[in-house]
Amino acid sequence: MKDLTGLFNPKSIAVIGASSQEGKVGYIITTNLIECGYGGNIYPVNTKTDGKLLGLPAYKTVSEIDDDNIDLAVISIPARFINQTLEECGQKGIKNIIVITAGFKEVGGEGAKLEDEMAEIAKKYDMNIQGPNCLGSLDTNTPMNASFAQLSPKKGNIAFVSQSGAMTVAILDWSVSEGIGFSKVVSLGNKVDVSEIDLIEYLATDDQTKVILCYLEGISDGERFLEVMRRVTKIKPVVILKAGSSQAGAKAVSSHTGALAGNDSAFDAAFENCGVMRARSMNDLFDYGLAFSKSSLPTGKKVAVITNAGGGGVLTADKIEDIGLELVDLTDQTKSELRAVIPDEGSVENPIDVLGDAPADRYKATLDILLEEDDIDSIIIMACPTASYDSEGVGNAIVEAKGKTDIPILVVNMGGPTFNEENILLRENNIPVCVFPETAVNVLKALERYHTIQSEDQESCIDKVQDTDKEEAARIIEEAKQKGRDALLGSEAYQVAKAYGISAAPIILATTKEEAGQAAEEMQYPVVLKIASDKILHKTDIGGVVVNINSKQEAEDTFEQIMASAKEAHPDVVPDGVEVQKMMPKGHEILIGMLRDAQFGPIIGFGMGGIYVNLINDVCFKLGSGISDEVIDDQIDSTKISKLLKGYRGENPSDIEAVKDTVKRVTKLTLDFPEILELDINPVFVYEDGCSALDIKIKI
Amino acid sequence: MKDLTGLFNPKSIAVIGASSQEGKVGYIITTNLIECGYGGNIYPVNTKTDGKLLGLPAYKTVSEIDDDNIDLAVISIPARFINQTLEECGQKGIKNIIVITAGFKEVGGEGAKLEDEMAEIAKKYDMNIQGPNCLGSLDTNTPMNASFAQLSPKKGNIAFVSQSGAMTVAILDWSVSEGIGFSKVVSLGNKVDVSEIDLIEYLATDDQTKVILCYLEGISDGERFLEVMRRVTKIKPVVILKAGSSQAGAKAVSSHTGALAGNDSAFDAAFENCGVMRARSMNDLFDYGLAFSKSSLPTGKKVAVITNAGGGGVLTADKIEDIGLELVDLTDQTKSELRAVIPDEGSVENPIDVLGDAPADRYKATLDILLEEDDIDSIIIMACPTASYDSEGVGNAIVEAKGKTDIPILVVNMGGPTFNEENILLRENNIPVCVFPETAVNVLKALERYHTIQSEDQESCIDKVQDTDKEEAARIIEEAKQKGRDALLGSEAYQVAKAYGISAAPIILATTKEEAGQAAEEMQYPVVLKIASDKILHKTDIGGVVVNINSKQEAEDTFEQIMASAKEAHPDVVPDGVEVQKMMPKGHEILIGMLRDAQFGPIIGFGMGGIYVNLINDVCFKLGSGISDEVIDDQIDSTKISKLLKGYRGENPSDIEAVKDTVKRVTKLTLDFPEILELDINPVFVYEDGCSALDIKIKI
Repeated sequence: MKDLTGLFNPKSIAVIGASSQEGKVGYIITTNLIECGYGGNIYPVNTKTDGKLLGLPAYKTVSEIDDDNIDLAVISIPARFINQTLEECGQKGIKNIIVITAGFKEVGGEGAKLEDEMAEIAKKYDMNIQGPNCLGSLDTNTPMNASFAQLSPKKGNIAFVSQSGAMTVAILDWSVSEGIGFSKVVSLGNKVDVSEIDLIEYLATDDQTKVILCYLEGISDGERFLEVMRRVTKIKPVVILKAGSSQAGAKAVSSHTGALAGNDSAFDAAFENCGVMRARSMNDLFDYGLAFSKSSLPTGKKVAVITNAGGGGVLTADKIEDIGLELVDLTDQTKSELRAVIPDEGSVENPIDVLGDAPADRYKATLDILLEEDDIDSIIIMACPTASYDSEGVGNAIVEAKGKTDIPILVVNMGGPTFNEENILLRENNIPVCVFPETAVNVLKALERYHTIQSEDQESCIDKVQDTDKEEAARIIEEAKQKGRDALLGSEAYQVAKAYGISAAPIILATTKEEAGQAAEEMQYPVVLKIASDKILHKTDIGGVVVNINSKQEAEDTFEQIMASAKEAHPDVVPDGVEVQKMMPKGHEILIGMLRDAQFGPIIGFGMGGIYVNLINDVCFKLGSGISDEVIDDQIDSTKISKLLKGYRGENPSDIEAVKDTVKRVTKLTLDFPEILELDINPVFVYEDGCSALDIKIKI
Repeated sequence: MKDLTGLFNPKSIAVIGASSQEGKVGYIITTNLIECGYGGNIYPVNTKTDGKLLGLPAYKTVSEIDDDNIDLAVISIPARFINQTLEECGQKGIKNIIVITAGFKEVGGEGAKLEDEMAEIAKKYDMNIQGPNCLGSLDTNTPMNASFAQLSPKKGNIAFVSQSGAMTVAILDWSVSEGIGFSKVVSLGNKVDVSEIDLIEYLATDDQTKVILCYLEGISDGERFLEVMRRVTKIKPVVILKAGSSQAGAKAVSSHTGALAGNDSAFDAAFENCGVMRARSMNDLFDYGLAFSKSSLPTGKKVAVITNAGGGGVLTADKIEDIGLELVDLTDQTKSELRAVIPDEGSVENPIDVLGDAPADRYKATLDILLEEDDIDSIIIMACPTASYDSEGVGNAIVEAKGKTDIPILVVNMGGPTFNEENILLRENNIPVCVFPETAVNVLKALERYHTIQSEDQESCIDKVQDTDKEEAARIIEEAKQKGRDALLGSEAYQVAKAYGISAAPIILATTKEEAGQAAEEMQYPVVLKIASDKILHKTDIGGVVVNINSKQEAEDTFEQIMASAKEAHPDVVPDGVEVQKMMPKGHEILIGMLRDAQFGPIIGFGMGGIYVNLINDVCFKLGSGISDEVIDDQIDSTKISKLLKGYRGENPSDIEAVKDTVKRVTKLTLDFPEILELDINPVFVYEDGCSALDIKIKI
């Protein structure tokens, strides 16, 4: 892990390119540092200095400064001078650098070259370089504003890491009007050295940070991202808004699995895999951020709703059901206790209607009763303004209740001025308040989901897959490669599958009629014969497929017949031969496939198979890396075909364990062989006992 | 149409139950009326008055008042005195009444009886009664605040109609802090007389109202709702937030179609049918309201985006694609003109990046160029705060551009204080401003959808269905009813289908083996024989179904065999006989079904058929009433099975016209016979030429 302490809490700071000229970046950074209340020494550095700058002693170079505790240099000098300056910083022993200046990788050519050199210098001196082409960093606890953002956010426990400088300023500006507080705000820039992964890993250890929010346009290193996030998300929530569609998705793909995966499937699968919460909009990002910043986590889905208006209760209840939370069924005991404090016109069923005229102590009594009920995982209190609404009293009742419990209490105050005082009180006491019920329910769902993420302890089930012959598979793949093929023949794919213990219908490639006859005899009847050639696409149309062959003689004759048909249709193609495959009894058809993401590795697809897969699109994708038994169960369960496999309308259940085993073996195969780019098994026939892969396509 | 002019702009108003006692409802209403600037006469009425009330001459009864121009009485006296008072109002010639008082239908018993009487009085005197159990009304143009809401909204062009009083207050309270203006605000209460339909119909004619927003928990009269909304939505947008799940959906349903329809399918289908925009949340409701209130409508989907920050542009572009709008491809001409005003580091491709340092005149020049391009349907201008951002200048440039064009211009200013001045300027000039790009895109999509709704002119295609024999169908249904059955036999359903020209595999009910043999001869072979009894559920399991019968003898023998099997399995059941059905060649399997909604009538389902319909769930629902050719096309096209029907992977296309004709005939049948509660045809076999309904279930 990179130690970034010096980046956020440096003993002294050098500002290289400091300026006394108003409006210049070097001026803004220096004045921001001076005015933010930073407690350490600030050393302005400018080659043209006369020894004084903005009231501070100034230096021509960092080497002149008589201080060995400079932990951070903030640099905003022209791009072409920067690497030399970094060398000086390295020799001075400065371990943390923020390069504000732009004109590097983002402009290409010479800039990209300079950035490559910069990476080398970072390594050479073991320095942390943030940027280049960034806005800087803020730490509200140090306090330090080492950025050229002219606004300073409030102190808080949200860390915000952004790949876009503009987005960072936008958020800071917006946070001022919303009164949102931050622990640290970091602009990533080009990520020459310090990446979002380094920052998130470091922020996980930061006591002042309770939740980490990110705006990202890309991930630096998929594998490390997954590894780090799996650890960090057990410690604190990470919410990422990922902009832009995945490049991998945009590439032309030829497999079923590839066509079925959306542009963003890889990110969805990867984020889910490592416990990152994905925000779908800026609104989500900050709603989640605020909720995690303030609230405890619910340990279950059951919500109690208190309302002073029927309509509001209905809206809230609708949304709770929509989003996959539950309205708790109150016990008779609780209901009879509530009856004693709520008038007859009110409702003691959830949503509990305390009525529009409810004084503060009715809220208090209701809350006290609910806090005694064990079955409630969270409470939403939802109010409409009424003439007699006691804003302060209700606020105090809620704050008091919050003090007595660990379960999340969220407030929806549907209105404006009526709730001003109460809202201030609630916010001071870290109780999330929303204007509309849907926001509260949305946020509560995120809290609940994160609780599940944090409490689940899933183990990869792939390492436990036994009896795979990696050498054999490697040999077959290597052979195909050497022959210059980018896809395995059916017979080769069968052998690879067999090496990995994947149950499949045997295929033997016959190059003579005798071989065809012998192969048919070996695998027993009936068999199917297919022309083997990647040059011939519509095999059935040219008479290249013959099914239901039941004798050696028939197999031999058919071999010749197929070769003749192929020659007639494609005189210039030399087929690899004819594939002899054992015909399997019909079973439920499933698809198991793999699409390799450039960053996150194998994305495994499972779903309904057959010739209409693209039409039905009943496929669920999960990341192969680190996949657990639970995730595969979830993957299978979330498809429609799983209902069929479990025995639909009185049918006998199919062998789901065999299916699961096949998914695991396919995953292991694709994890073991990065050279497998796409894999499609469609269909796999699933039986009451076992399953059998019929058509295996492997692209390398 | 109810003339509600007197409700919103009365010449004089009587306040019955007026009070000088602070805090009382009658006090609040009277003071609200006095203080709101209402220009007509206000007559407080109170049985205990001493002739003066809150500075106005007061009366013991309305009949005492010497004014024949009282257009409105607002009543807040105890429930039991109200009907008598209404009689007095009627005799006085007061045509509009707001009954604030609660204690009617919502409490049941005596209250419900009083409300029924109230409805009679309304009819007797041809009065408009709003309420009871409501909050009253506000009109900002009259001006008039005839409510006990203590807040007065700003003047604006949004009308808000709410079934929940609490929700009304919440919205008014909230609108104050958001600066949202209203034309009229109406609390519906129990809708004894004036319904949401009456109000929306009236508001359509109101010059001060540009958009109608509603919060509803139920619809008063489905048929009239549809009829009125179809007209109103051509004139101005109606946006409805419907709370609570449909009661119809909650009922247990036995058909496939019923099981496939979600709780809310009826409302979705009905709103879509009549052009009502459905809001999914309070946020949506008001985002849409504000957009319609301020913006013009885009005539197409093509959006140009101007941004000063790459990240913001990406977020906006992502969302535009997600939601079904399009980023316009700029012409080379436009791009070269843009290149002349935007520096090289900026982008002249859409999203157009004018860069963070853009002065106001760069925005102005960019806008001027875009306004010249014909292909752009709307513009989003998206800014992040930068050090050099010229809030006022950019605002003026946008306002100026807005003056030159009819296309919608929406602004996203991602931040807070930086944009304060600009945002005020934009709002004053009716330019919608959002903080986050997703809101702007969402709103733009709503504007675009409404443009389509308003410009489409669809005609019902059901009236044109020829050759249906309603008498014959009625006779068969009547016969089944008389026999006490709640479902038609297969043979009856076939006859009904035949009467409506629905192509179906013939079914004849045989009660003797001779009849079975004769039926088989008539329809030609092969045939299938099935036991006919609604008491026997798993017909196949008990040997009640025999397929592939190829001769008269076989048919006769099978008849006896089936009857015997049935008797053995269910000794106490007397079957209706055995159904002889012609076996049809296999085709693509579709489902056509109908579920009757208590309010909106037949909801027609179309989708993939077969035994796995519930699993696949590929069914699209549309409202039968007024269905057009275009809607049926859309219904068919939005299913996955349609791709199969159109010829998938080289297959010949199926006869979609025959399918469409069948959908129309089913719709006509279910519109003609309200006694048909559910109808399921699954499967219909579709061929290259024609189609044939196999299994028709009709519940009556």
